[in-house]
Order: sequence, then C-alpha cells, then structure tokens
Amino acid sequence: MPENHGTKPRILTGDTPTSRLHLGHYVGSIENRLRLQDQYDCYFLLANMHAFTTKAESPEEIRTSTIEIVKDWLACGIDPDKATIALQTEIPAIAELTWFFAMLLPFNRVLRNPTLKTEIDAKGLGDTYSFGFPMYAVGQCADILAFLPELIPVGEDQVAHIEMCREVARRFNQVFCAVDPQTEDDDYPARGGLFPIPKALVGRIGRLVGTDGNNKMSKSLGNAIFLSDSPKEVKKKIGAMYPGQSRNPDEPGNVEINPVFQYADVFLTDRALLEDLKDRYRRGDNLGDGHVKAHVIEAINALLEPIRARRAMYEGPGGDDLVIDIIRAGTARANDLTERTLHEAKRAMRLDFGPRSLRWAPR
Amino acid sequence: MPENHGTKPRILTGDTPTSRLHLGHYVGSIENRLRLQDQYDCYFLLANMHAFTTKAESPEEIRTSTIEIVKDWLACGIDPDKATIALQTEIPAIAELTWFFAMLLPFNRVLRNPTLKTEIDAKGLGDTYSFGFPMYAVGQCADILAFLPELIPVGEDQVAHIEMCREVARRFNQVFCAVDPQTEDDDYPARGGLFPIPKALVGRIGRLVGTDGNNKMSKSLGNAIFLSDSPKEVKKKIGAMYPGQSRNPDEPGNVEINPVFQYADVFLTDRALLEDLKDRYRRGDNLGDGHVKAHVIEAINALLEPIRARRAMYEGPGGDDLVIDIIRAGTARANDLTERTLHEAKRAMRLDFGPRSLRWAPR
Repeated sequence: MPENHGTKPRILTGDTPTSRLHLGHYVGSIENRLRLQDQYDCYFLLANMHAFTTKAESPEEIRTSTIEIVKDWLACGIDPDKATIALQTEIPAIAELTWFFAMLLPFNRVLRNPTLKTEIDAKGLGDTYSFGFPMYAVGQCADILAFLPELIPVGEDQVAHIEMCREVARRFNQVFCAVDPQTEDDDYPARGGLFPIPKALVGRIGRLVGTDGNNKMSKSLGNAIFLSDSPKEVKKKIGAMYPGQSRNPDEPGNVEINPVFQYADVFLTDRALLEDLKDRYRRGDNLGDGHVKAHVIEAINALLEPIRARRAMYEGPGGDDLVIDIIRAGTARANDLTERTLHEAKRAMRLDFGPRSLRWAPR
Repeated sequence: MPENHGTKPRILTGDTPTSRLHLGHYVGSIENRLRLQDQYDCYFLLANMHAFTTKAESPEEIRTSTIEIVKDWLACGIDPDKATIALQTEIPAIAELTWFFAMLLPFNRVLRNPTLKTEIDAKGLGDTYSFGFPMYAVGQCADILAFLPELIPVGEDQVAHIEMCREVARRFNQVFCAVDPQTEDDDYPARGGLFPIPKALVGRIGRLVGTDGNNKMSKSLGNAIFLSDSPKEVKKKIGAMYPGQSRNPDEPGNVEINPVFQYADVFLTDRALLEDLKDRYRRGDNLGDGHVKAHVIEAINALLEPIRARRAMYEGPGGDDLVIDIIRAGTARANDLTERTLHEAKRAMRLDFGPRSLRWAPR
C-alpha cells in the first residue's frame, strides 16, 4: 500500500502503450511524475485500450508495449510503492463512466476537439478511422475523472482534451448533483459535486524536437532517442544530427537554429558550461559541432545510465511476470477507488439498483 | 434459476425505458417474446443507459420508467423463472465490449447507419444530439453480443442496427479469433469464432399505426394505447378515431383506408366475424363505424384484461421492491454469462492480465 495513500492530493496521468518511451516523453512528463510521486497520491494509467484506436489488428504488439512501457516507468524511477500503476482495460468503471459522459457531451463538441483533428492529420488517418477514435476523446474524460484527481500532468498537445474533461465534470455536477452552474471551478466538490474540475500541468518541456531537427520527437517519425537506447545508439543518433548550418569551428554560428543546442538547453546540467558553449559558438571561438555534440551525448547518457541499470532488473526471464504482478497490484488498488467513484456517480444518476463487488482474484 | 437455462438456443432482446409499453410494442415484440420464452433461453435487457441519449436530464424519470416497463413485461406474462430480466447499467461487460467493438467499426459506417438517421429525424434532434447518440449504435452491438444469442426479436426499424451487429461479430471473429473471412455466418462459432452471427426476428406486426391513423404508434406522438390503459381509456381512444372517410351505415365503405380495420385485423381473434364485418362495410350493409369500433374495443380490452390483472399485483406498496428483486436476480444471472463472454473476448485480444470476479451483493 503506498504511504499516505488517500490523504495527499491526487494526480492522474498515463501513457498509451504504442511505443517505448523516448526523451520527449521523459522531459514532457516522466520527469514531472518523478517529482510529483512524493508529494501526491499518483495514479499512472496504462491506456492500452487507446492503443487499439490505431493498432486493433496487432493485439500481441499492444500487450508487449504495455509491459515494456511499465519497464520504462520503473526504470525511470516510478516507484510502485509510492504511485499506483493501473491497467485501463481492467478498470470497468472507466468504460461505464465513458457512457455517462457521452450522454453529456454534444456530438459536435467532441468532433470539434482540436487535439482530435491534429491527431487525425498526424497519424494520416484521413477518413478511415474507427468510431473508437473520436470516442476516445470521451473515454479520456472517464480515464481521468474515475480517479477524482486535482492535477493532470500532460504534454502541451493534450490541453484541449483536458478542457473537455473539465467541461464534462462541471456538467455532470450541474445535471446530476444539482450544483449551481455559476460555481467557481475549485468549489464544485464543496458544493456537492462528485467530480473535481482538474487542472492540466504541462511539463518543463512541452515539445522536444526530434533528431531530424524539425518535428516533435516521435517513434513513428524515426527521430526519437529511446530511454532504452544504448550509449552507442545515443552517440550515433546525436552524431548524425544536422546542426542547422554549415560552418567551421572558427566561424560564428547561430545557436537558435541548431537543434543540438536545443538538446544542450534541456539536458546539460552544468549551466555554466552551457552558457560558455553558446558564447563560443556564437563568436566562432574554435568550437566545432562535434564538440557540442560530445557534451550533449555525455549529458544524455548520464541521464540514461541509471535508467538502463534499473531496466536491466526487469529484462531476462521472470521480468515480465514481475511487471505483471505490479500491474495487478496497482489495478486492484485503482479499482478500489474507481468503483467508489462509479458507485457515487450511479447514485447521483438514480442508477443505484444494488451494490456490486469487483474483485481481482490473486494468482 | 430458469428451467433448462443454458441448454436451449439463446435469444436477446430488450426495451428502452422511455415510455410505458403500448399496443405497438405488444404486437411488435412482446407477443413474440411470450411465445419464445418456453422454447429459448431468453434474456430481456432493460436498456436504461440508452434512455439517457434523449433524457439525460431526467434521471428520476428513467428510473421510474425502468421499473414500470418491468411491470409491463411481467403483466404481459414474461415469466422471470423462464426468462432473465437484466439491467444494462449493471452489466459492465456491455460497456467494456462497446469499447472493443468501437475499435472495429469505421466511424463513417456508424454514422451512415440508416436507423440512426431515421431516429435523429423522428426525435427532432437536429444537430444537437449527444455523442452518446451515435455511440449507442455501437453499444447496441455490445448489448446483443455480450449474450452470444442466436436470435434477436426486434421491430422492423431495428434491422439496420442488427446488420451492424452482425458485421462487427464477423470482424471480431476474423481479427481476434483468426476465423477465415470466407466463412459462412452460421459456421463462425464452429471455426473458433467467439461470437455467433445472430439473426433478426421481426414480429408479426412490424408497424402498428397509432390512433391518429397516420403515424406509427408512439408515446411521444400522443397516438398510443398503453397496456396499462383502463377499459374506459381504450374506449375513448378508439371512439375518437377518424375512420378515414365520412359515410352512412348503408353506404359502401373503404376498408383499406380505415385504421380501425387495421386494428380489427390485428386484434380480432374471431376471424369469421372480421371477414363478415369487412364484407358488410364494403357493401354498406347497415354497418356504422361505431359498430366496428365496438368490436375493436372489445377485442383490445379482452387482450388487456389479464394484463391489467397481473399488473395489479405489482402496484401499490411493495410493488417496486418486488420488481427490483426480480431485476437484481436477473442481472446477477446475466453477469454470470456476460462476464464469461468478456473474459473470452479479452483472451482473444491478448488483454488477459488476470481473472476478476464480479459479485452482486444480496440486499
């Protein structure tokens, strides 16, 4: 049982297991979570149903990614004794709340969601996507609100989704808990609302550029450095980056258009060194691009080294079983909470026809 | 426990509790169910979540209608010792299967569903409907397939919905159970498919005209004769019907355009009398419209009398509790079945991370 479980303010966030985690995930959210897991009652959701929106025909791959992403979390330092790791498809309250929220959200409002449009373009879905794709925007409201969280650490691109979640929380509280629509967001629970109106918390780096220097880092664009990459792979990927310009070490350079410097900004912990490198680059003071890259490679590998070491504990035989045990324990704990939320939601909706108990059988 | 539960072929059907049942429901489906409950393992679903698509702001009304519709079923002769009465919102497998099926159905396919378009027009929803409205077309596939039925007794207007359900059953079997797409519908289970491809069974009278003589009988159009109407109400409603023409008893009349004769066709059990009335009406053999109506009133009241008598057992104090006990017992039984279906679906989708047990606590 996590320490102080239930007394700290609560956080919900998660990842869709379609890819191993990369540096963009790390600085966009994981780093945040590591800081928050001590101060908050954290729930990290494995959004494996979401993975079916684009990969329904590869269920085995989704299962593997689900396990791999937990390995990434644990490797980064997510501590299952502090935070709860929960599996979406084993939390029926999420599926049931999705129905409730679908009844409160206008169809056109869901389809107008800008995050949805961006994703349709980014994933090249055209008009061939499944019904589950827009439905997921509604489902994400349930992913979040089932846990009654106060904060949702997310990437910048998810802020529009969170806004819809806040809307539906207000609406549920108004329609089914008779809360006055003029109520301030923070006051809903005190006025009898079931759901808090949670706030998005955007990470330190909302958008990390990929090694192509142009696009957001993403597995599908092939421009990602994964948390599980070896030192050699990091060296190779950074080494191959185009520094945005062609210059000699003694020619003045433009730091702003050089994506390697974007990485330097993010990953160099020695800020004096960072400023010195920028200054010398700008002046053309005998600083080659290879030299800057070497510092960035060193900094990234310094970050990844303890992550690789922890990850090794879950690789090899028995590793998957260890991970599945962690998923099971967390999901059981998550169901304790989400079943209570669902029970309260049903009471508010006059759907309370009898108590049920949902148990996860031990192995 | 219903007799022979599980050994007979299975049927699933249900009603949305937005209205007390009327004669249109009776001849369109209830009559069918009464005949089928002896020969089949019947599940009758209270689609109370569906009621939220149009009445989300009236949860108390939905609850009342849910209980009232069970009273109607029991009054008609649905026998909870033979058939299982199940409450949609307490069957989590339905909500979870809705997600799975949403991933397999193209968005445009769901929106093109002709039943959906008809309902949007009929209910005057314009473009203000909730996301739950089109989502319900997907949910209905889960309502059905969770029970693995062979037959689905429905009204004519639901046939397009059933077609989508059949499509998604085939698709699930193909994608997740590796069944050859060339397989004949009846052979899916034998070839390893989880879901049967169920067949629609349209009732004796697909469409019963309302007392306005024009539209389909419907509560919202105010042209319905309810199963719970008193003899006096039946008399008044039939008495006020326009017979489609203005004539004297000794003038030849047109049977075809007279909606009272449509009722005579459906409700007069004495077929010789029916033919005689038609013959005299056509010839203008001293047959007034009041006389025809009197026969129809008598026939309808003869049908409704035993229904009223059985309904009385569930009215008055304690009646609702009796009904809720029946709902609870049926829902517990339904969950035994649908949890098994869900478990198998998750196994096929590689979502099997651990067994769960769902229990309905006794009062």
